[in-house]
Amino acid sequence: MSAHATTTEPAAHLAQDAGADFEAWAARRAQRARELVERYTGAWLTPGSPLGEAMHYAAALGGKRMRPLLVWATGECLGADEAALDAAACATELVHAYSLVHDDLPCMDNDVLRRGQPTVHVRFGEAMAMLAGDALQTRAFEVLTSDPALPPALQARLCGLLAAAAGAAGMAGGQALDLGATGRRLDLQALRDMHALKTGALLRASVMMGLACAAEREPGLAADCEGALRRYADAVGLAFQVVDDVLDASMDSATLGKTAGKDAEQGKATFVGLLGVEPARDHARRLLEQALQALRELPQPARARSARLAELAQRVVARSH
Amino acid sequence: MSAHATTTEPAAHLAQDAGADFEAWAARRAQRARELVERYTGAWLTPGSPLGEAMHYAAALGGKRMRPLLVWATGECLGADEAALDAAACATELVHAYSLVHDDLPCMDNDVLRRGQPTVHVRFGEAMAMLAGDALQTRAFEVLTSDPALPPALQARLCGLLAAAAGAAGMAGGQALDLGATGRRLDLQALRDMHALKTGALLRASVMMGLACAAEREPGLAADCEGALRRYADAVGLAFQVVDDVLDASMDSATLGKTAGKDAEQGKATFVGLLGVEPARDHARRLLEQALQALRELPQPARARSARLAELAQRVVARSH
Repeated sequence: MSAHATTTEPAAHLAQDAGADFEAWAARRAQRARELVERYTGAWLTPGSPLGEAMHYAAALGGKRMRPLLVWATGECLGADEAALDAAACATELVHAYSLVHDDLPCMDNDVLRRGQPTVHVRFGEAMAMLAGDALQTRAFEVLTSDPALPPALQARLCGLLAAAAGAAGMAGGQALDLGATGRRLDLQALRDMHALKTGALLRASVMMGLACAAEREPGLAADCEGALRRYADAVGLAFQVVDDVLDASMDSATLGKTAGKDAEQGKATFVGLLGVEPARDHARRLLEQALQALRELPQPARARSARLAELAQRVVARSH
Repeated sequence: MSAHATTTEPAAHLAQDAGADFEAWAARRAQRARELVERYTGAWLTPGSPLGEAMHYAAALGGKRMRPLLVWATGECLGADEAALDAAACATELVHAYSLVHDDLPCMDNDVLRRGQPTVHVRFGEAMAMLAGDALQTRAFEVLTSDPALPPALQARLCGLLAAAAGAAGMAGGQALDLGATGRRLDLQALRDMHALKTGALLRASVMMGLACAAEREPGLAADCEGALRRYADAVGLAFQVVDDVLDASMDSATLGKTAGKDAEQGKATFVGLLGVEPARDHARRLLEQALQALRELPQPARARSARLAELAQRVVARSH
């Protein structure tokens, strides 16, 4: 992907995967996501620049790399071009990384620990953390538009999907709703609507960006798959948040890698608060079943190649942190 | 521009301008920039949403609309498509608005007054101001990719130019350098390099985006103009900052519409600090002459249509706030 991408060839990593089991695939993809975001927060920056260091630190901190995994799993299901998937995967993770940096700031969640490490503002100061988040967001759009091998129409489509998911009608809008809801009693529908924006929009966009990459090669198949993949993504996105609430309520900070129990402490509405722990777990399992049902509704040959998407959904619900 | 743009037709506003004098043209374009940013921070948002209100407030606060004026003046000089120029102009102003919101935050400049009005965080709180800045940046990329009438390759090119100018190798990078330089003695070259990123990159991108819009229709002419327009943009960008420093050192807050004398107070290097007021004014005049010389080097028919660009450069140097 672009003249800057010289350390790993995008074509090679996919060929290795034939027949690999899910955990090995996911580990290799997570590693690749890390390589991509580190490259795109490193190579273009002056060595020793504190902004570059802060961006790189934020991007390297990453955990499950859920969004890139969704991009790749969707793209592989539909036979998409690897270089395009790499760009899309990297861009979703950069936007996710930016949102975490800003979320952790004192004026937001004021969190000092993220994945067991000091948060970016603790390490680099508030002003630099804010700028690093700003520049990580921008970098996502640079990544999507910097590879001359990607068809321009696809670059534009990916930018549009990412911007719509990240902005006021997506992730940022959800964060604003969350901010306004602290200390207020949201009902289940309002909580769902908030999370559909705050975390759901970017997870859904990851699937839709994988689909957009495939639409370049297989427009007919991609169009036929869109409805089912959207239902899959919506169910997985909501399940992700329900499980997050269950983990926040039932784990300690060391296992979680971030400060546990903060939601309750801050008076935030959660699925556990509204439903209780066990019913919330059941809710997550029903959402998993919806996601798997959506995959069963995919037309062939996509359905036969949707195992990674199914396993990803299962991992979301079964995860312990 | 897109289904959302229904209140003003882009074609109409250009036809009115034949023979209009510069001030009337600039006032009409500034008004159009305001309409566009208000539309793109209003129409897509739920009424009563505090995030939408904060974005709208930030966008409406705008002053000289220098970046959109540069987009339009460049595009008109080269015969670019009006809808494309509208999108590009709006996007540059949204990125500028986002940068001001974040710049004013307590962790950055901690400024309470902007264009004579309370800054966004004073009005809406810090967390909402940060989110509004984040979402204004995202919105810029939505605007560039939301009009199906714009050729996808142009959408991608505009996104790429804007992202490169706004990010770590542009505006955000310059802000980080500025942050690191507070209280330190920068020399003239380091000060110039910092401003080439902090304010120069987005001003230059405004010219380059106007050029990109024209390249769709007139690729040969646009290519022939690129070097001269880049020299023009660099000179105007630097002149803009030199004049800013002169105004900051010599005006009161009421005239300036923002807190005056803050640079000196914060120990920041300025052109006035390094050169003195009168030599800084002379420097700005020499930069103006460089900008005008670059326009004289444009090939025809661009040179004959470059009056707006020349007048804009003159306005930058002659402005009083």
